[in-house]
Amino acid sequence: MSLLNETLAAINPADAAAAAQARDRQARMTKPTGSLGVLEDLSVQLAGLAGECPPPVPEPAAVAVFAGDHGVHAQSVTPWPQEVTGQMVANFLAGGAVVNAFAAQLGASVTVVDVGVGTVLPVGEGPHAGEGLLDRNVRRGTRDMTEEPAMTRDEALAAIEVGITVARDLVAAGNRALLTGDMGIANTTASAALTAAFTGADAAAVTGAGTGVDAETLRHKTDVVRRALALHGLDAAPASAPVVDTPGRGLAGPGAADPIGALAAVGGLEHAAIAGFVLGAAAARVPVVLDGVIAGSAALVAASLAPACLDAAVAGHRSTEPGHGVALAHLGLTPLVDLSLRLGEGTGAVLALPLVQASVRALRDVATFDSAGVTEKQ
Amino acid sequence: MSLLNETLAAINPADAAAAAQARDRQARMTKPTGSLGVLEDLSVQLAGLAGECPPPVPEPAAVAVFAGDHGVHAQSVTPWPQEVTGQMVANFLAGGAVVNAFAAQLGASVTVVDVGVGTVLPVGEGPHAGEGLLDRNVRRGTRDMTEEPAMTRDEALAAIEVGITVARDLVAAGNRALLTGDMGIANTTASAALTAAFTGADAAAVTGAGTGVDAETLRHKTDVVRRALALHGLDAAPASAPVVDTPGRGLAGPGAADPIGALAAVGGLEHAAIAGFVLGAAAARVPVVLDGVIAGSAALVAASLAPACLDAAVAGHRSTEPGHGVALAHLGLTPLVDLSLRLGEGTGAVLALPLVQASVRALRDVATFDSAGVTEKQ
Repeated sequence: MSLLNETLAAINPADAAAAAQARDRQARMTKPTGSLGVLEDLSVQLAGLAGECPPPVPEPAAVAVFAGDHGVHAQSVTPWPQEVTGQMVANFLAGGAVVNAFAAQLGASVTVVDVGVGTVLPVGEGPHAGEGLLDRNVRRGTRDMTEEPAMTRDEALAAIEVGITVARDLVAAGNRALLTGDMGIANTTASAALTAAFTGADAAAVTGAGTGVDAETLRHKTDVVRRALALHGLDAAPASAPVVDTPGRGLAGPGAADPIGALAAVGGLEHAAIAGFVLGAAAARVPVVLDGVIAGSAALVAASLAPACLDAAVAGHRSTEPGHGVALAHLGLTPLVDLSLRLGEGTGAVLALPLVQASVRALRDVATFDSAGVTEKQ
Repeated sequence: MSLLNETLAAINPADAAAAAQARDRQARMTKPTGSLGVLEDLSVQLAGLAGECPPPVPEPAAVAVFAGDHGVHAQSVTPWPQEVTGQMVANFLAGGAVVNAFAAQLGASVTVVDVGVGTVLPVGEGPHAGEGLLDRNVRRGTRDMTEEPAMTRDEALAAIEVGITVARDLVAAGNRALLTGDMGIANTTASAALTAAFTGADAAAVTGAGTGVDAETLRHKTDVVRRALALHGLDAAPASAPVVDTPGRGLAGPGAADPIGALAAVGGLEHAAIAGFVLGAAAARVPVVLDGVIAGSAALVAASLAPACLDAAVAGHRSTEPGHGVALAHLGLTPLVDLSLRLGEGTGAVLALPLVQASVRALRDVATFDSAGVTEKQ
């Protein structure tokens, strides 16, 4: 059995008994029922995932930043040169990027995974050069999705399995929260195409300004997405009913019929790896905090392979990219942070981590009305 | 000169040069300009407050939970018995409340201040009984605002000065972030009245379900607020122009003409103390993270005494209470966390603390395009 199939087979639904215990405990804690809002639901989700109440505190935490390049960069969808992907990988390794600063504050580790960078990485010199980098390069960037499939099926599968393996290894090393990160110039274009393919949304509804393009480039970028979808037959909603029937988790797009094929056609190597990372976390029953629009589109792929993987998924934040909102709605996930971020790297996931941990801390550490001798409301 | 006047005189505007330096640095950091959204603006605010760029990291952090009771409880505005205020103070001291769990996770201290609890506090027995409690009781609960002013002016001033002193002492002890907390059964009623008085909003627009009341009780609670405002002449927008001309910070309500008088008429002792706490933080140029609707209404009082105090204020979260949104809009503050919380205690402020710290960490620790050798966009 392939690693992917083995992983899919290991993904089981949430434990309803543990979830019910968490819901009951939230009602007995010394606070008005419901007053912790979204964090109460989150604590119930994490109890169901862990199969025990209270669930373990999600720490230590590990961010995996999956880096890849994109053939569609040739279509001038971004003002950033492609070599910035590799340069930013070097910046991550030197600890100089925003995700490093945010992770250091919380004691989370940052692992950089080259799953598809197009250039030879400038990792510097000296005894520590390249430390923290996992070289798992499947190919040096995808092909141009407007001309041919971005990846072969085998490449897409290999990149998915990179993500599964990274998740497995990080859990084996003791981590109890996994956070997605990404780096890849032009990867919001691939995200837009994936999101359209897996939700049935129009290209214009899911294509955004990314790291900052002007109105003319945005129109061009939207057209690039539309052409890619048409080339690969991913531009029409299927006649069939949604393949997932969990409330709020309807995946109605044409990509859902052949998720690996759609991923290979218009996705990125980092998207494939993140999809695998989500599946790996779910199989290990460890929460995975999704970053922004890249992770959201990758989660659509993961959810179409194994809907129950979403029981492990937490939406870290809502990006300003329009496609992210579309993806979150289809995934049925509520973002924890909503601060007009559009950086990527895992920054939105890291910012959400203390909120995830707080939801569990409340369940573990707060007294009940009985134990604290506090009178309940009349 | 009174402590209040001395404090008001010490509150100066933000340092424009330090703020400009921060804005410039945000544009040179290895990320697309603007991609950190609200956190970029926050880092600029904190640089202006500190008068240096980068500003110090806002840690260690201290939560002050101001507790008080309310005479208006006699009007049956809540299903919770009044003695719960004192019982929850005991719970805070025992470390059993949600604010304790959240603060412990982040290494923040929790100081409980009895500024107006109505009952003798059951602080337990043993050598550590009462540890962590500051007894600054001004009076054992306010009077019923529907029959007479809730406080005398002297009582309101004394409670404000309790807050100033607590802020001063926490800063003197080395804290570099102050967080507001509150406990007081029926205090959302006082918050609603204060918010209406200081913004000119109708009682119905600012009165909410608080810790959970039914529709009938909500109608009654709204009527109680309306009656109190009418009794004290705080129910009509003034003919005069807004007293504060900072964009987004217009305070148009009738209370602004005599802030101490309005506070005394319909406020709570904990509201007065929190107003003082905000002023004390601003005078010390230390950021103060506001919790929810109680802090929002107290900040309206503080801002009408010294508009520049808002340069030190950060809105931790947006509560589900409708009056909180009204207060935030008038204060011109953007909440960092928006998770349908309605607990109080300081929980929303504590959840926002890592976001505040992250905004400064980014400014301090992230490489620039030049220093990291990353190519800028074309």
